[in-house]
Amino acid sequence: MRVARFAHGERIGYGVVDGDALVELVGDPIVAGFDTTGTRIPIAEARLLAPVIPRSKVVAVGRNYAKHAAELGNEVPTEPLVFLKPNTSVIGPGDAIVLPPESQDVHFEGEIALVIGTVARRLTRANALHAVFGVTVANDVTARDLQHREKQWARAKGFDTFCPLGPAIETEPDYDALQVITRVDGEVRQDGVSSDWIFDAPTVLEWITASMTLLPGDVVLMGTPEGVGPLRAGQTVEVEVPGVGTLRNPVVAQATAG
Amino acid sequence: MRVARFAHGERIGYGVVDGDALVELVGDPIVAGFDTTGTRIPIAEARLLAPVIPRSKVVAVGRNYAKHAAELGNEVPTEPLVFLKPNTSVIGPGDAIVLPPESQDVHFEGEIALVIGTVARRLTRANALHAVFGVTVANDVTARDLQHREKQWARAKGFDTFCPLGPAIETEPDYDALQVITRVDGEVRQDGVSSDWIFDAPTVLEWITASMTLLPGDVVLMGTPEGVGPLRAGQTVEVEVPGVGTLRNPVVAQATAG
Repeated sequence: MRVARFAHGERIGYGVVDGDALVELVGDPIVAGFDTTGTRIPIAEARLLAPVIPRSKVVAVGRNYAKHAAELGNEVPTEPLVFLKPNTSVIGPGDAIVLPPESQDVHFEGEIALVIGTVARRLTRANALHAVFGVTVANDVTARDLQHREKQWARAKGFDTFCPLGPAIETEPDYDALQVITRVDGEVRQDGVSSDWIFDAPTVLEWITASMTLLPGDVVLMGTPEGVGPLRAGQTVEVEVPGVGTLRNPVVAQATAG
Repeated sequence: MRVARFAHGERIGYGVVDGDALVELVGDPIVAGFDTTGTRIPIAEARLLAPVIPRSKVVAVGRNYAKHAAELGNEVPTEPLVFLKPNTSVIGPGDAIVLPPESQDVHFEGEIALVIGTVARRLTRANALHAVFGVTVANDVTARDLQHREKQWARAKGFDTFCPLGPAIETEPDYDALQVITRVDGEVRQDGVSSDWIFDAPTVLEWITASMTLLPGDVVLMGTPEGVGPLRAGQTVEVEVPGVGTLRNPVVAQATAG
């Protein structure tokens, strides 16, 4: 089942994708389940929003594809490399990625994202996937120049608009057969498969929750495949996970320092 | 004025410290201001809670005292070194710091914390302090062994219970004359003054908000002075900022891996 969050007229709600319509849900399905109001809303009439606003955090894994680690001159890690993106960086489908004047080299990183469905602490590999509500699409936008210059990545990966999410959450993904494709102005730049993950989803979730509790609505980014590159104002970047959806965002330059 | 959050019987609320009592406020003062209900609650009868639960994030500055940078063998930074702690790491006065089995070297780091009062983006040095609601006391608890082993500090500084905050927020601090003293079982281990900050509060706030929006209730940790060291189960650590309060937390070992 695919779930989306939408704005339609003055209403903001959640719906299940059914062909070219959304069947409206009574509330946030992570909390309220899948009861519907019966209302059908044509997707063409709705504006899709980020399918989840993390209550707490976005936790991300770096260098989880061997070829991507190599392209940036890094070794393949022996343990998951975990970092945080603030929830203030989240935007939805169609929202603009804003290039800040502080960076001259902002990169796209197409990724598969896990949306957490339960309070999750000290998951084990065996039970970890039960804590996942579903899978969505993400772009781990990164100011590469700041990432290289600053020891910690909080600012480089934490700018407002640097975490597009959406357009929908697939609640029954096949974790072993997920593909992620990134295109800039229609040209394929990344194409990776989950079978190339160095650390699979249960391993990553066990690793993260040995330290910190994940809350319902928190998001875990599973890393980006090779092919990362810069974004320019005026371009459109799209990240597709077949079966989940295509996350499309225009890129704009910040007009002033204000 | 000093503001605290408290539990008293079945009631959780906010109050202004007035001698040995709290004068109850009508709501969260960051949102609702300082109108009181008129009820006086003896502090001795109340349990003080973390004075704020960050809606979004705790942003911290590393190596903001030259002697602390030196004691860990690091150079004095030329730009603020910014990292994130998740809001799930926050605990209040009296709550236990839990030593996880993953680390054999958990350190205290007594710090001065800024509590943000407004939505704040691209602050300037000139206006930055207007975005601060007040100052509280923090302990940036850190698994030093994991911090050294893992490139990013998210896990090492992000464990549940690794961000004690409180006991109160001083809304009219003298930023140039703040002192922070850390004691373990009563013995002074750290004693620093804000005049030794490499980057002062306006500079840090300008730097952070050039990247990410701060939200009301977010917290900024201003770094720790020299003298950090390990905590053992059974000890009590206290961080005092004279005029603001003393944040006291017992230290316990996690009973099992569960």
